[in-house]
Amino acid sequence: MYQARIETVLASMREMGLEQMLISDPDSIWYLTGYDVSPFERLLVLCLRQDGRHTLFLNRLFPPPGEGVPCRQVWFSDSDDYLSILASQVDAGRDMGIDKDWPARFLLPLMERNPGCRYVLASSCVDGARACKDPVEQQLMRVSSQINDTVMERAAAFLRAGITEREVSEYIVSQYAAEGCDQVSFHPMTAFGPNAADPHHEADGTVLQEGDCVVIDMGCRKDRYCSDMTRTFFFRSADPKYTAIHDLVREANELAESMVRPGVPLKELDRAARDHIAAAGYGDYFTHRLGHFIGQTEHEQGDVSSVSPIIAKPGMIFSIEPGVYLPGQFGVRVEDLVLVTETGCEVLNHVDKRWRILG
Amino acid sequence: MYQARIETVLASMREMGLEQMLISDPDSIWYLTGYDVSPFERLLVLCLRQDGRHTLFLNRLFPPPGEGVPCRQVWFSDSDDYLSILASQVDAGRDMGIDKDWPARFLLPLMERNPGCRYVLASSCVDGARACKDPVEQQLMRVSSQINDTVMERAAAFLRAGITEREVSEYIVSQYAAEGCDQVSFHPMTAFGPNAADPHHEADGTVLQEGDCVVIDMGCRKDRYCSDMTRTFFFRSADPKYTAIHDLVREANELAESMVRPGVPLKELDRAARDHIAAAGYGDYFTHRLGHFIGQTEHEQGDVSSVSPIIAKPGMIFSIEPGVYLPGQFGVRVEDLVLVTETGCEVLNHVDKRWRILG
Repeated sequence: MYQARIETVLASMREMGLEQMLISDPDSIWYLTGYDVSPFERLLVLCLRQDGRHTLFLNRLFPPPGEGVPCRQVWFSDSDDYLSILASQVDAGRDMGIDKDWPARFLLPLMERNPGCRYVLASSCVDGARACKDPVEQQLMRVSSQINDTVMERAAAFLRAGITEREVSEYIVSQYAAEGCDQVSFHPMTAFGPNAADPHHEADGTVLQEGDCVVIDMGCRKDRYCSDMTRTFFFRSADPKYTAIHDLVREANELAESMVRPGVPLKELDRAARDHIAAAGYGDYFTHRLGHFIGQTEHEQGDVSSVSPIIAKPGMIFSIEPGVYLPGQFGVRVEDLVLVTETGCEVLNHVDKRWRILG
Repeated sequence: MYQARIETVLASMREMGLEQMLISDPDSIWYLTGYDVSPFERLLVLCLRQDGRHTLFLNRLFPPPGEGVPCRQVWFSDSDDYLSILASQVDAGRDMGIDKDWPARFLLPLMERNPGCRYVLASSCVDGARACKDPVEQQLMRVSSQINDTVMERAAAFLRAGITEREVSEYIVSQYAAEGCDQVSFHPMTAFGPNAADPHHEADGTVLQEGDCVVIDMGCRKDRYCSDMTRTFFFRSADPKYTAIHDLVREANELAESMVRPGVPLKELDRAARDHIAAAGYGDYFTHRLGHFIGQTEHEQGDVSSVSPIIAKPGMIFSIEPGVYLPGQFGVRVEDLVLVTETGCEVLNHVDKRWRILG
C-alpha cells in the first residue's frame, strides 16, 4: 500500500521533471510510510527519490519507525547541524521539490548550504495523491461518516426548549467520544435562528426558541480520517419563507451531487448550485465556495469553487455544501461528503436532508 | 508602544544589514501593530522597512485593522495573483528578511517573482524583541501566573481517592474558564505514580492511589499571555526515597533561579541545575532542557539548555523546570516562570514548592 502511494507521487514528480523531493507534512509522511510522529518544532522530512533511495530524516527524540517503513533512516540530535546533514544527503546538483508548508527556518538554511539546487514548489505531487483516496482510505472515510450520521440523529433528538447552542455542541463532542473517535474533525457548529446567518458562527449561550432554524455543522476524526456534514432543522414551527429557502438549498445540493462523475470540472458543480440559488433571487446570499477536499484533515488541499482547476477523478472525496444566509434573520446549509466513483458518486452521508420540524 | 516595538525590530535588522523584512507570524503582527487576525491558510504579511513605509498585505476576507495600526495597507482577493502584488510592492533589489515559519507555498513563488533579492532568515530580529517583555507585557504575564497559582491550589485541594487524571485536568480547565481565561496555554498534564515518569504523559483514566506522586503541569492564557507551572505532590503517604528526590529537584530549581540576572548565559543555569542533580546520582534521569521562553505562546523562540547561546537580559521571561524521571516508578518536576529584572529575577509563581502530602 505504501509502495503504491509512493509510486503515485513519483509519477507526478516525473511529470514535473523532479528526481527528488522533500516531504515535511507529518500527515503525508504517515500516508507514504506509516510512520506516525508529531515533530512539533523539530525537523522531520522524507526525501523521495526516483532511484528508490528514499530517506527519512529523524530526530533522536522521535520514536523509531516500525519494521515496515520503506526507506532508510538518517538520525540526528538537537545539538547536530542537522540542516548540513540533510544538505549532504540529497543531490545538490539537481532540482529539489518542496511541499507547501515547509517553513523558512528549514528551507532558507538548506538553500544556503546547497545553493546549486533549484527549489521547486511541488506540493501538488503529494497533495494530488492524497486527494484520491485508495480503497483502504475510502473505507475509513465511510466509517467516519457513519459515526457522523449516527451522532447527527442523536443531536437532532437532543434539541429541546431552553437548551443552548453550547450544550448541543458539547453533547455532540461527548457522543463522538462514546463512539470511539480520536477527536473532532473541527469543533461542532450549532447556530440557532439569526445566528445561523453567520456561516462560521461559534456556538455560544444562545437559547433555542420556537420557530428557530437550527444549523448543525459537525464532523469527527476516527482512525485519522475526518467526516463533515451539515443539516438544518426547525424547532417546533417553521416560517414558510424559510422552509422554501431550505428546499432551494437542498435542491442545489442534490443537483450538484447528481453531476459528480469522473471528468466533470469541479467549478461546474459550483456554478450549477450557484445558478440554481441565484435563479430564485438568493445568489448574493450564498457567500462561500460549494465545497472542499477532506481526508486526514478537515480541509485538505483542493476546493470546489468557481476558480477550481480540478477535474473529478475516481477516489476524490469532497464536500457539497451550498447555503443561504440572510443577515439578522436566518441561515441554512445542507452538506454531504461525496466520493467520486467510476460512474458517478457515492454520497457518504445518509441523514435525511429534507427540512424537519423537531421538538 | 507599537512604534517602540517596531523600532527594536528595525534596530536588529540594521545589525543584519537589512532594509526590509517580511513578518508573517500573526502573533508578531499583533505585537507590532495591534492588528489581530487568524489568517489560516491565507496570506498575511507585514513588511517592515527602514524608511518607515511599513505595509500590511491583507486578504479582503480579513476584518479591517483599527485606526491605530501604524502602516499602510495593501488589500487583495483570493482570485488575485497576490504573490505578484506582494513582489511588486517590496524592494526587489535589496536583501529581504523572512521570519521563521513562513511556508514554502508563499516563499518559493515570491523568490520566483523577485529572483534578484537575497532572502535571509531574520526571525531573530522579531523573536528577540518578543523575548524581552515590555512593562505592559510583564504585567499581563504576572496576571496570567497569578491565575495559575490560584488554580493550582484549587487542583491540589481537589485531589481525593478514586479520582482520575483526566478528571483533575478537566477540573483545571473549568477553573481557568471560571477565572475568565481565553483558553489554556496547553492542556493540563496530570500524572499519577509511575505515569509521572513520562515528562509528556497525557492525562488518562488512571485512578489515584495512596502513595502516588502527583505531577501537575499547567498553564492558562489570559489576554493573549501564557502561564506555565509544575508542582509535584504526594497522595496520603510518601516514600522517603521519593521525597528526597523531590527535595533534590526543588533545590536544583532554586539554585538556577538564584543565579538569574542580566548577563548570565542561560546555558550556565542549565549546567548548575544539571550538576546538582547529577551529584546525587540522578543525572541520567533529568532528560530534558531546563526551560523555555514563553509569552503569547507556551513555547516562544529561545531555550534554557546546555546549547543555548542566549545571555539573560532584563524583561526576558522563561521557565526553570528541572525534573527527575524513574521509568516505571516515579517522576518529579518543579517549574516556575521567572522574569529577569535589572538586578536578578522575579519569580512569577508563588505556590509553595516543597513537597506536601495531600488527601
